[in-house]
Amino acid sequence: MLNGEPMKIAVVAPSCTLSREAADRLLALVAERGDCEVAVHPQCFLSDGHFAGPDDARLSALREVMADSSVDAVWFARGGYGSNRIAEALVSSLPDEARSKVYLGYSDAGFLHAGLHKADLKVAWGPMPQDLMREGGRGAVTRALDWLVQGDQAALEPQLEGPPMAFNLTVLAALLGTVLEPDFSGVDLLIEDVSEHHYRIDRTMFHVTGSPNVRRAARLRLGRVGDIPSNDPDFGRDEVAIVREWCERSGIAYGGRADIGHDVLNRVVPFTR
Amino acid sequence: MLNGEPMKIAVVAPSCTLSREAADRLLALVAERGDCEVAVHPQCFLSDGHFAGPDDARLSALREVMADSSVDAVWFARGGYGSNRIAEALVSSLPDEARSKVYLGYSDAGFLHAGLHKADLKVAWGPMPQDLMREGGRGAVTRALDWLVQGDQAALEPQLEGPPMAFNLTVLAALLGTVLEPDFSGVDLLIEDVSEHHYRIDRTMFHVTGSPNVRRAARLRLGRVGDIPSNDPDFGRDEVAIVREWCERSGIAYGGRADIGHDVLNRVVPFTR
Repeated sequence: MLNGEPMKIAVVAPSCTLSREAADRLLALVAERGDCEVAVHPQCFLSDGHFAGPDDARLSALREVMADSSVDAVWFARGGYGSNRIAEALVSSLPDEARSKVYLGYSDAGFLHAGLHKADLKVAWGPMPQDLMREGGRGAVTRALDWLVQGDQAALEPQLEGPPMAFNLTVLAALLGTVLEPDFSGVDLLIEDVSEHHYRIDRTMFHVTGSPNVRRAARLRLGRVGDIPSNDPDFGRDEVAIVREWCERSGIAYGGRADIGHDVLNRVVPFTR
Repeated sequence: MLNGEPMKIAVVAPSCTLSREAADRLLALVAERGDCEVAVHPQCFLSDGHFAGPDDARLSALREVMADSSVDAVWFARGGYGSNRIAEALVSSLPDEARSKVYLGYSDAGFLHAGLHKADLKVAWGPMPQDLMREGGRGAVTRALDWLVQGDQAALEPQLEGPPMAFNLTVLAALLGTVLEPDFSGVDLLIEDVSEHHYRIDRTMFHVTGSPNVRRAARLRLGRVGDIPSNDPDFGRDEVAIVREWCERSGIAYGGRADIGHDVLNRVVPFTR
């Protein structure tokens, strides 16, 4: 509740299309809660090849909700791929109204997180509406809302030693050297990834830990790494061993794996300074 | 022929294991030619998970042939993944004998090409022994030998406007920001890739063309992009459109696609200055 008004959350899709069923489940969940309003932007259901509409449509929907002074939070509908295509244009001109909001999402949305955080906006890594379609998704989305609407600290990733950031490993790698690249100095850096072969994780860890910027992080922790495709021959070591080895080789403190039994995708990591 | 002696070519495997059959085919081809000697290092047949032996074994075999004054050329047996794990250590201490040789390979070997070229050694992108196992491989490997042994200019990638370099796109991206990153100023840059989804090619092009260093290239040309996994939904544009778009967005001259009817993997691109 803000000034007696329920929090207003706008959902837009800067990457891939939100499913109608996920949107319906979200609206039902929000109606049950009664502590916030959610507006799912029609752009979420556009489709243009891989994307939720052409770059222009995704960018203008995002700009629209960012400029709307009645919106308290902008929630990215889902990941996939595509927010990088509009991130640089987005941050090149930000409306003043954008600064009072919180931006929530994960995975591909990391391109926006990087750019918006760099522009001093409030971003957080956390569950997204499309997660309602997967197992445990209702719990995850509920936690996201508990944090957004009520500031529930139980929704946070445990053991954060600020300032924290969280990124999909592949997205983090693709940020290096671009204008969106964050400053990792002193950052408690959580990484996760999905659907990447072990050899790709190894190659990306080589890349990421070869960056002098990433080497300035306070520590690196490994979150959820899921859906690893099998490889022939077997890579010979798992993702924990891979991440630990590259941290050791590059002098980055390895903070261990986030607790077994929870899923980093399901918790909130607010980027703070 | 060098000083009346046939050229001596050492084959090592800094990434994945060479198949015995490819080695047999290579030795048979060389025996037929009679204009060179090929020594396949036993390390090529080691296996350690994904790799042709542990990092130490791959590194020491490579160092051994580089320090051997009787060796005229070092030929990387095949691609796959893994040369990045030894590249920095390799270039940190190079024997004098390494400077008089030529280094030939492509794909994953690009990590070595980058480091060795940066250290002023002679490297070239071109076919590798394992290519003998694929269709058209004998022709490709024959061209590689024609160039290595006889300096045959017909083996070269056509329309090079020096200084040229060629890289696998994913390898190029993983070099950015590392100590191995080449200087692309004024370079005629050929890129190819294999087994990457269109959305991954798009994301990697975003990354690569976001680099100020890559933006200093004279132009970027697209070679072979093969075995693209299908995507659901379809990405909506092909690799030519993707590469052209990112070149346009970043102000890099797009040099077009290398001629249809040949395969960039099958030609030689010597890195020159």
